[in-house]
Amino acid sequence: MRLALDPAAQDLLFREARTANTFTSEPVTDEQIRAVHDLVKYAPTSMNQQPLRIVLVRSAEARERLVRHMVGNNAAKVSAAPLVALLAADYEFHEKLPRLFPHRPEVRELFADRAVREESARFNATLQIAYFILGVRAAGLAAGPIVGFDTEGLDREFFGAREQRTATVLTVVNLGKPAENAWSARLPRLDFHEVVTTV
Amino acid sequence: MRLALDPAAQDLLFREARTANTFTSEPVTDEQIRAVHDLVKYAPTSMNQQPLRIVLVRSAEARERLVRHMVGNNAAKVSAAPLVALLAADYEFHEKLPRLFPHRPEVRELFADRAVREESARFNATLQIAYFILGVRAAGLAAGPIVGFDTEGLDREFFGAREQRTATVLTVVNLGKPAENAWSARLPRLDFHEVVTTV
Repeated sequence: MRLALDPAAQDLLFREARTANTFTSEPVTDEQIRAVHDLVKYAPTSMNQQPLRIVLVRSAEARERLVRHMVGNNAAKVSAAPLVALLAADYEFHEKLPRLFPHRPEVRELFADRAVREESARFNATLQIAYFILGVRAAGLAAGPIVGFDTEGLDREFFGAREQRTATVLTVVNLGKPAENAWSARLPRLDFHEVVTTV
Repeated sequence: MRLALDPAAQDLLFREARTANTFTSEPVTDEQIRAVHDLVKYAPTSMNQQPLRIVLVRSAEARERLVRHMVGNNAAKVSAAPLVALLAADYEFHEKLPRLFPHRPEVRELFADRAVREESARFNATLQIAYFILGVRAAGLAAGPIVGFDTEGLDREFFGAREQRTATVLTVVNLGKPAENAWSARLPRLDFHEVVTTV
């Protein structure tokens, strides 16, 4: 079966794109990040919640504060990338719902409980992380997403003490042009019959 | 800034694609789902975990069992769609890690604890749900993802009693060709400066 998406786009986003471990020194500009956002902002979230928040770590001082909380060889990877972003879930997304879901502004009240909105923020921000990774590829860049970090340490570092904090980092992502040999051989994927069943 | 992804592909996946509420009667074939899987299987998950499992609800009997657990007007939407899929997280994904992450088969032991692997399965399967939604669009179909259902009821119905269950449904998704007037006006999106900050 032929997909509607043309083969070059399939390759760019899925088949030839890879998680990069190393990058060239070419900088990643705000314009590039803006173009990624302008594309992926349209992808769906539940009740249009859009809880993803992105912190671009540009200063040397902030990069140092970040690296400190990375686990194992992720510290070296994050030190060397042209740009690093924190992809975080905003637990106060519900305050924007009357504007984002204007035909039913009362849905804000569904999220009066912090635990309820933490779960929803986490789920929808995670969808948006996936959209963002593909958007980075759409911009001709490579992403190196990382979950190997001390979440509590990183959250405290960038979002303050636990009591006052309104966001949590879900993924750290290195961004840039992939270096030569930026990745190893592709790892195995599950077969259709292992993933899909019919009832 | 011009993206590397061509404008037609941007439209197909992001700008013109929309969450569909209604569909034509045209069936969705296994070949279409297979083509979606063959594309999106390449998108990244942490340690190549790939915990997403997809249950295609094809029989009238299974559709009835599903509809029973949908909340509000989602029951009618799920009743009417050409095909409905359950998108679930497999909590036993770690059993496959020695095959999926063969250079470090010992990572399986990181997930010996059920709570640890539930959290990881949930996160990575959610990334894969986003990839799947975009893959459905890549196949020229529309997706109608739904989170308004009784999770405990649905899990019991399709995955058995809590003690023996090894998966949980994260999203129910309607699939098909969008009907005329399948959606309302596009809802507002957050501006760049509301989403992205620089440190």
